[in-house]
Amino acid sequence: MGTRNPLNMGAAARALSNFGCPHLRVVNPYDVAFREARSAVGAAELLANAEEFGTVAEAVADCGLVVGTTAAGRRELQHELWRLDEGGSEILRQMKAGRVALLFGSEKVGLSNADMSHCHWLMRIPTRAEHGSMNLGQAVAICLYELARVETVSRQKHSALVEDSTNSEARAKSEDIERLTQLLFEVLRASGYVEPRGAGATAEKLRRMVRRMALNAGDAELWLGMLRQVSWKVGGQLKESHTQADRRSIKPDEHS
Amino acid sequence: MGTRNPLNMGAAARALSNFGCPHLRVVNPYDVAFREARSAVGAAELLANAEEFGTVAEAVADCGLVVGTTAAGRRELQHELWRLDEGGSEILRQMKAGRVALLFGSEKVGLSNADMSHCHWLMRIPTRAEHGSMNLGQAVAICLYELARVETVSRQKHSALVEDSTNSEARAKSEDIERLTQLLFEVLRASGYVEPRGAGATAEKLRRMVRRMALNAGDAELWLGMLRQVSWKVGGQLKESHTQADRRSIKPDEHS
Repeated sequence: MGTRNPLNMGAAARALSNFGCPHLRVVNPYDVAFREARSAVGAAELLANAEEFGTVAEAVADCGLVVGTTAAGRRELQHELWRLDEGGSEILRQMKAGRVALLFGSEKVGLSNADMSHCHWLMRIPTRAEHGSMNLGQAVAICLYELARVETVSRQKHSALVEDSTNSEARAKSEDIERLTQLLFEVLRASGYVEPRGAGATAEKLRRMVRRMALNAGDAELWLGMLRQVSWKVGGQLKESHTQADRRSIKPDEHS
Repeated sequence: MGTRNPLNMGAAARALSNFGCPHLRVVNPYDVAFREARSAVGAAELLANAEEFGTVAEAVADCGLVVGTTAAGRRELQHELWRLDEGGSEILRQMKAGRVALLFGSEKVGLSNADMSHCHWLMRIPTRAEHGSMNLGQAVAICLYELARVETVSRQKHSALVEDSTNSEARAKSEDIERLTQLLFEVLRASGYVEPRGAGATAEKLRRMVRRMALNAGDAELWLGMLRQVSWKVGGQLKESHTQADRRSIKPDEHS
């Protein structure tokens, strides 16, 4: 997310390599030279293969769980906030069912509210209150360490036991969740629920709410079907002419 | 230990500050400019107060336990080697009795055998074998995180069990969840989504789905507001005449 310092990007990539995570996705890097980050000992390949995206929505489209990281300083948060050591095991559990994205903000300002609205919940590293904000590369390293640690512990615990939860159905992908959010917004707008002036704020609020629902793939499909039908009913003939406006008022990274 | 890069020293200092460790000791820094390390957001004071020593022996003189860190690559080690997550609790135990030193080597070669000889035992961060060597600042950050984590866990264990989760917002009451289910059903029926002959089955499916959402009280209220608005839009005038039928087709215990 808008990383400014190629060194930090390099450090993040190195940590990914240290802990065996092959995928780095970059949203709107400030400095396109990040691929040459020199501090990235052993992580050149990972940097070269990093995927670039224009929006958070696109970057997390195929992920079933999106977790934002925050120092949780002054700002009031609209999300559930877990301590890293609490969130780690939940992340691992979800990783068995599908892709999980860990979202890190830029060095300067962290994640914006719009960025966070794509997250299911947030996580903080338990630093001390007086100096909570961490260096990006270090924050990435600590998160990956914690996941590796929890995985080792759980492997040891369950090594004899068979995998415990084949019944936990895969989480819906973020792209479907985002589509659902947009349809819901459209239905509400056509119903007069959305105040034109507050459209951006309502969109973010909906986005957070839908993610808190933690839908599995089947339920997301069910919702999409229901909303399509309602959408047709409430705004069938209006829809075409409003499509552009709808897109504008809820496009992924709008700040309002 | 012979750190070469002021940036790394700065990153290490920042991590110390993040996790509330006030003491940085430096042995033979390669670059005396380390005190000006620019990346050390919020750690200027810590760097300014760092103590410099000429030898490891002097640096650890007043410590009761000295633990060396290593990637444990090719070298044959003469020490007991613990994984960080195993060593952490032992370190904390010793910290109650006296000072503990964590010893980090230089970026290039790590700790020499001579350096290690001052250690009681060694510790490694569980990175993957193919790329074990970590960036210095990241390694420091991970070690301190692990100590903070273990300390929190042990404090929680011993704190007489306070109530466990007042902070996770209260789940919505069943009556609100049921009202929400009914409204959703009503909206879907008015939209033509519900087939008359399959109404009972659809109602049950919806009821299960809504409960899987595990809504908290606030989100349930939000949903009720949205659905009321949509309901008014899709079936306002129809509603009165259908009330009876609606009730029948989604009453709580119907099996179809």
